[in-house]
Amino acid sequence: MKDSINVFAPATVANVVCGFDILGFAVNQPGDEVVMRRTEKPGITISKITGDDGRLPLDPARNTVSASVKHFLDHINRPDIGVDIELHKKMPIGSGLGSSSASTVAGLFAINSLLGNLLTLEQLLPFAMKGEELACGYGHADNVAPALFGGFVLVRSYEPLDVIRLPFPESLYCAIVFPEVDVPTRDARQMIRSKVLLKDAVIQWGNIAGLVSGLFMQDPDLIGRSMKDVLVEPVRSILIPDFYKLREIALENGGISFGISGSGPSVFSFTKDRESAGRVTQKVAAHLASLNIGSKTFVSAINKNGPIVLG
Amino acid sequence: MKDSINVFAPATVANVVCGFDILGFAVNQPGDEVVMRRTEKPGITISKITGDDGRLPLDPARNTVSASVKHFLDHINRPDIGVDIELHKKMPIGSGLGSSSASTVAGLFAINSLLGNLLTLEQLLPFAMKGEELACGYGHADNVAPALFGGFVLVRSYEPLDVIRLPFPESLYCAIVFPEVDVPTRDARQMIRSKVLLKDAVIQWGNIAGLVSGLFMQDPDLIGRSMKDVLVEPVRSILIPDFYKLREIALENGGISFGISGSGPSVFSFTKDRESAGRVTQKVAAHLASLNIGSKTFVSAINKNGPIVLG
Repeated sequence: MKDSINVFAPATVANVVCGFDILGFAVNQPGDEVVMRRTEKPGITISKITGDDGRLPLDPARNTVSASVKHFLDHINRPDIGVDIELHKKMPIGSGLGSSSASTVAGLFAINSLLGNLLTLEQLLPFAMKGEELACGYGHADNVAPALFGGFVLVRSYEPLDVIRLPFPESLYCAIVFPEVDVPTRDARQMIRSKVLLKDAVIQWGNIAGLVSGLFMQDPDLIGRSMKDVLVEPVRSILIPDFYKLREIALENGGISFGISGSGPSVFSFTKDRESAGRVTQKVAAHLASLNIGSKTFVSAINKNGPIVLG
Repeated sequence: MKDSINVFAPATVANVVCGFDILGFAVNQPGDEVVMRRTEKPGITISKITGDDGRLPLDPARNTVSASVKHFLDHINRPDIGVDIELHKKMPIGSGLGSSSASTVAGLFAINSLLGNLLTLEQLLPFAMKGEELACGYGHADNVAPALFGGFVLVRSYEPLDVIRLPFPESLYCAIVFPEVDVPTRDARQMIRSKVLLKDAVIQWGNIAGLVSGLFMQDPDLIGRSMKDVLVEPVRSILIPDFYKLREIALENGGISFGISGSGPSVFSFTKDRESAGRVTQKVAAHLASLNIGSKTFVSAINKNGPIVLG
């Protein structure tokens, strides 16, 4: 049995424009890394966090990575085990790219691997959701499930938990731009109305069914024209500077879709090739720069693997 | 060019439990037949309607079949053409099985065939929707599209109209029971609330995405467990005698799902084989009989062809 392991887990895009709270996918970059070492002394410690500008707690009871690892060790009834965690944030916090999910999934994958893969990925999911509950106040799965499984994931139901892995066209590229403005997940959720018009809901689920069909049919055009959100985006887009102008720019430069990643403020487009994705990120970032807003950009295919062991 | 034609068009199940206003499929039986004959005199006449107990108008301006045929002839600019229509209703009216759609589609398929297939099936769809508007006060496509194309159909969007044909497991059987109680479509629509809770909408579209995934994955179990309706069924089921007991009976006798067809009062189950479908219809009908309610039952595979020319 290994004494230490270094795991990368991918960033994720939840909602995927029309699929509020039920759809998500993983990207190859960015993502987070966890280095985990067995220790002689039982219990969990966090010796180092990098890339967080001091924003994340080193206290193992308050950090989502250590808290979900503890939950895992409690579940397998191994209070005798001790590990030390280094967390290397390689992606922006509060970006809407599943930052806490990537860390949590990396930690759970690491402890499970160190202990000889006691649980399957499917069995790890509830522990990752527990970590999300701590991070966001709501134990949703639309970030942690794609971070854990890779690819495109449908959370059909929570009670009982029913997660379906969806196929996707491998040619699809994702262009992500994170405008450096602050949008806490809790606030972004609270802005959403608790009641919606049935006729709007019908439009929304027509698009969800279209997106799922487009994924199975490997049809980028159907995917693109289905990615419309009449319910949540009109509210959340208020928090993103010049959102509709950014959309126009993305669609004019090869984006087949444009929308908010998770609760934002990151935005993303699908494109049919890497070159278009590069152009979209560049043009969107340039417009934000003209508004004096800095941004980080990422270009990636859809991640197929979920977490991987590094080096 | 032929002088007369006899066309059968299939009954359809709209909504398919969770997919309110966006999903529908066709069955092999029941269905309606239209006999259409060219006449020397321009214009449209209806010489005979059978199987309607005198409920449908013979006036060509008020009958949905003749009205949509007229719309078609106007569109192709052939006011010189004359046809006489016989409509043979082989299915109950007001049953929630797309009775008016089957008639309208049969009529449009007949006139198009008589004139050498001027339009594709896709091009006929808007004319059929016009017929629905006349029949139901609302030009929806979730009955006419599957009646026209056969199989399982997704109406992703109305503006613009975007209809996607979905695959389905060919082993799937459909058990239909029409309880002989009256539920007019207009009333059934008016009962539905115009606002819904977002959290219920999320449950609904998780199930829609699950059903669509199950159809592509040929997975009857995923199809079955996705066919739940938390929004419309709780209201519409009030109009169906002992609805929840009927569900229990259907699920106990091999049904993998149970719900209302369209706006009811017909109910239907999917089953994994013909034998189970027969058992479900028999047991459900028996319970209705014990309540002194007569019923008609139908057992069918999912229709693959849409309208066909008879004899």
